Amino acid sequence: MTASTEVALPDSGRGPLVAVVGGGQLGRMLALAGIPLGLRFRFLEPNPDPPVAHLGEVIQAPYDDPEGLDRLVEGARVVTYEFENVPVEAARRLSRGAPVHPAPAALAMAQDRLTEKGAFRDLGIETAPFLPVDSRDALESAVAELGYPAVLKTRRMGYDGKGQVILRTPRDLDPAWEQLGGRPLILEGFVPFERELSVLAVRGLDGEIAEYPLVENHHEGGILVRSLAPAPGIGPELQATGREIAHRVLQHLDYVGVLAVELFQVGDRLLANEMAPRVHNSGHWTQDGALTSQFENHVRAILGLPLGPTRVRGERAAMVNLLGGVPPRTRILGIPGVCLHLYDKEPRPGRKVGHVNVVDTGAEESAGGPGDDGFQDRLYRVRTLVQEGVQVSQSP
Amino acid sequence: MTASTEVALPDSGRGPLVAVVGGGQLGRMLALAGIPLGLRFRFLEPNPDPPVAHLGEVIQAPYDDPEGLDRLVEGARVVTYEFENVPVEAARRLSRGAPVHPAPAALAMAQDRLTEKGAFRDLGIETAPFLPVDSRDALESAVAELGYPAVLKTRRMGYDGKGQVILRTPRDLDPAWEQLGGRPLILEGFVPFERELSVLAVRGLDGEIAEYPLVENHHEGGILVRSLAPAPGIGPELQATGREIAHRVLQHLDYVGVLAVELFQVGDRLLANEMAPRVHNSGHWTQDGALTSQFENHVRAILGLPLGPTRVRGERAAMVNLLGGVPPRTRILGIPGVCLHLYDKEPRPGRKVGHVNVVDTGAEESAGGPGDDGFQDRLYRVRTLVQEGVQVSQSP
Repeated sequence: MTASTEVALPDSGRGPLVAVVGGGQLGRMLALAGIPLGLRFRFLEPNPDPPVAHLGEVIQAPYDDPEGLDRLVEGARVVTYEFENVPVEAARRLSRGAPVHPAPAALAMAQDRLTEKGAFRDLGIETAPFLPVDSRDALESAVAELGYPAVLKTRRMGYDGKGQVILRTPRDLDPAWEQLGGRPLILEGFVPFERELSVLAVRGLDGEIAEYPLVENHHEGGILVRSLAPAPGIGPELQATGREIAHRVLQHLDYVGVLAVELFQVGDRLLANEMAPRVHNSGHWTQDGALTSQFENHVRAILGLPLGPTRVRGERAAMVNLLGGVPPRTRILGIPGVCLHLYDKEPRPGRKVGHVNVVDTGAEESAGGPGDDGFQDRLYRVRTLVQEGVQVSQSP
Repeated sequence: MTASTEVALPDSGRGPLVAVVGGGQLGRMLALAGIPLGLRFRFLEPNPDPPVAHLGEVIQAPYDDPEGLDRLVEGARVVTYEFENVPVEAARRLSRGAPVHPAPAALAMAQDRLTEKGAFRDLGIETAPFLPVDSRDALESAVAELGYPAVLKTRRMGYDGKGQVILRTPRDLDPAWEQLGGRPLILEGFVPFERELSVLAVRGLDGEIAEYPLVENHHEGGILVRSLAPAPGIGPELQATGREIAHRVLQHLDYVGVLAVELFQVGDRLLANEMAPRVHNSGHWTQDGALTSQFENHVRAILGLPLGPTRVRGERAAMVNLLGGVPPRTRILGIPGVCLHLYDKEPRPGRKVGHVNVVDTGAEESAGGPGDDGFQDRLYRVRTLVQEGVQVSQSP
C-alpha cells in the first residue's frame, strides 16, 4: 500500500461518495461502518423505505434501470454491491462511470452454481461431486452417476435454501423436475459433512489479503440461524486450508473487497459449497467480535485504504439471526455482552430483521471457572429469547 | 428494570424516534450508536449541512425557536441534547411534548459555574475554592481571599478554555476585568493538581447506575487532545471516590443518561471542576475500547432500556482528538488497532473534526514482552501523525 493509491482522497474530512447497488441490511451496515471514516453513501434500491433509508441518498429504481444506474454512479469514487444477483450487464455499465469492486467477473462466477463449482475445481479447491442437468434425461443419468441422496438446484438465483430439492429415492425425481425443470440445473452429490463452516477474507487494491478465522454456521430450513467464531476445534491445518481456499479465489479473480466462501467440513477436508462476492451473514459477528468488522474492511479495501486487523476480540464471539421478529429489546439488552443490530424492516415470518452478537465480556463473576465469562450461558439465553420472539411474531 | 417500562416499544424492529437538540458530532455519534438498535433520529440544528446531515431528519432552526422546538418533539419518544447550553426555557417547552433526559435541572446546574460548584459543595464533593465576582471590588476582595494564582471565569457559556483568564499578579486584574467584566463571574483558587481526570457514568430510568473507569485527560490550550482509559495508576480507593462523585450528582438530579464530571487529582483527593450533562469527549474511547459505548448507553438509558456493561475491552484504550485537520486516512488506518471517527466537518484551525481511538490488539508479535501489544508505540505513531496533520492543515 502506497499513499499514492489514495491520492485523490481529500484531507478535509469530507469524504468520498460510495455507490451501493442494493439498499438492504448489508448496505445499511456498510454505511454504518463507512460513515465514521468520513464516507458518504448513495444506494440504488427499488423498494420504498429500505433499511438504508436514512443513511444516504436512495435512488428508487430497478437494479437494471439504465437511468438509475447512471444516477447511482455519478460523482461516486467507487461502486460496490450488497447482493450477488446484480445483473452483470448493470455492473459493466456502472464500471464505465467508476471502478466497480468486486469486479463483475466475481458476480458472473457467483451467479451460476455450475460456473462457480467449475472454477473451484479449476483452482484445485475440493467440492461435492456435481453434474449439469439440462433435461429430464440428463437428470436420470446424473443421478445414476452420483447416487442418492443428491441435491438438485437451479444454477441461478438461489439463496437461503430456495431453488433446491433433495432427492432421496427415484420417486423424488418427478416432483423435483416438476418444480425446477425447464431452467438450467445442477445436481450435486450428497456429502456426509460434519458441519458447515465459512471463511471470510478481504483483499485490498494492492493485493494485500487478510482473513478472519473460520466460522461455524448453523442453518435451519436453509437459512443461517447462528454462527460461532472462531469455529470450535479447528486446528492450524484446517485453518490453513480455509485460508488457502480464500486466497486462491481472491487472487484468481483479482478480487477487491470482502469475499465469503461457504464450506463443508469432512474430517480434515474442506469442500467449497458456494461463494458470496460481498459481505456475508456469517461475518456479522465481526462487528463486535473482531478488531475490524467485515463492513469496515470492505469499504477500506474498495477505497484503496489499508486493511484493518481481523483478529477476534477476546476469545470468541457468536451471532444469532433474528428471523421473523424481534424479541423485546429490554430482554435482549438485559443480557450482558450482547449487541443488537436491527435492520428497520417490517417483520414477516422467516424474514431476517436483525441479528444479535454475543461477545466475550471478560467478567469475573462467572461460575464457570477461569477463562469462562458465562459466554455459553449468555448465548443460550439469547437463543431462547429469539426462539420465543419468533413464536410470538408468528402467532395470529 | 421491569419490562413494563418499555411497554410502548413496538416489537416490529421499526423503532421509536429520538429527538436531539443539536446536530454536531455528539449527535452524529448518538445516531450511529442508536440506529443499530432500531431507533430513528431527528435533530434541531441552526447550521446548514451539520455532521448529522445524513443520519436522520434535520430541522434547521435556532435552538430557541418555538416552531422548531415543536416540530422537533412531534411524535418523538424522548428528547435529549448534545450540548449543555440548550436554553433551559427551550428544554422546558420540549418537556411538554415528550420526556426530556437529562432533565432541565441538570442543564441549569451545568450552565452556571457558580451554581454548579455550589451544588458540588452541597453534595459533599470537593472543589477548588471559589467566590462569586459581580464587580471590580468583588474581584479585589476575592483575590485577597483566594490568593494568586487564581482563575477568573465567566459563570456561563464557557467551553474549551474560552471565557477564562489566569491571574498571576495584581497587574493581571485590569486586563482580565476589561476582557470579562460586566458579566457574572467566578474566581477559582488555583489547585496544584497532578493531572486531570474525568468520570463518566450513566443512570437508567429505573435508577440503575453504571460507570466507566476513570479517564486521564490531556489538554492543550484548554482543548482536550488525548484521553487514556483506564487512567494509569489509579488504585481502588481513588476509583471509588470517582464513582461516589458521579453517583451523588446522578442521584441528586434524578438524572437519566450519561454524565461526565471533570476532575483534578491532588494526591489521593479528587476535586470536581465541572460537569457535562451529556456524552463527553473524554468518553469517545468507549466506542471501541469498552463493551458498550457512552453513546449506546445514553440512548439505552433515556429509552428505559437496560444499561450495557461499561468494562474496558482488553487492558486499555486511548483517544486522540483530530484538531484542525485530518491526516491522510491511508497513514492513520495503516496503524493496526486504530479506529477512525470523522465528523464530516470543514477543517478550521483548532476545530474538532474527528478523533482516533487506539485499542488493545492482543497481537503477539510485539517486542515489548508478554501483555504488551505495542500499544504505547501505536499511540505514539498516532500522536505523531496527528501533529503532522495539524501542521499541514494550518499552513497557508
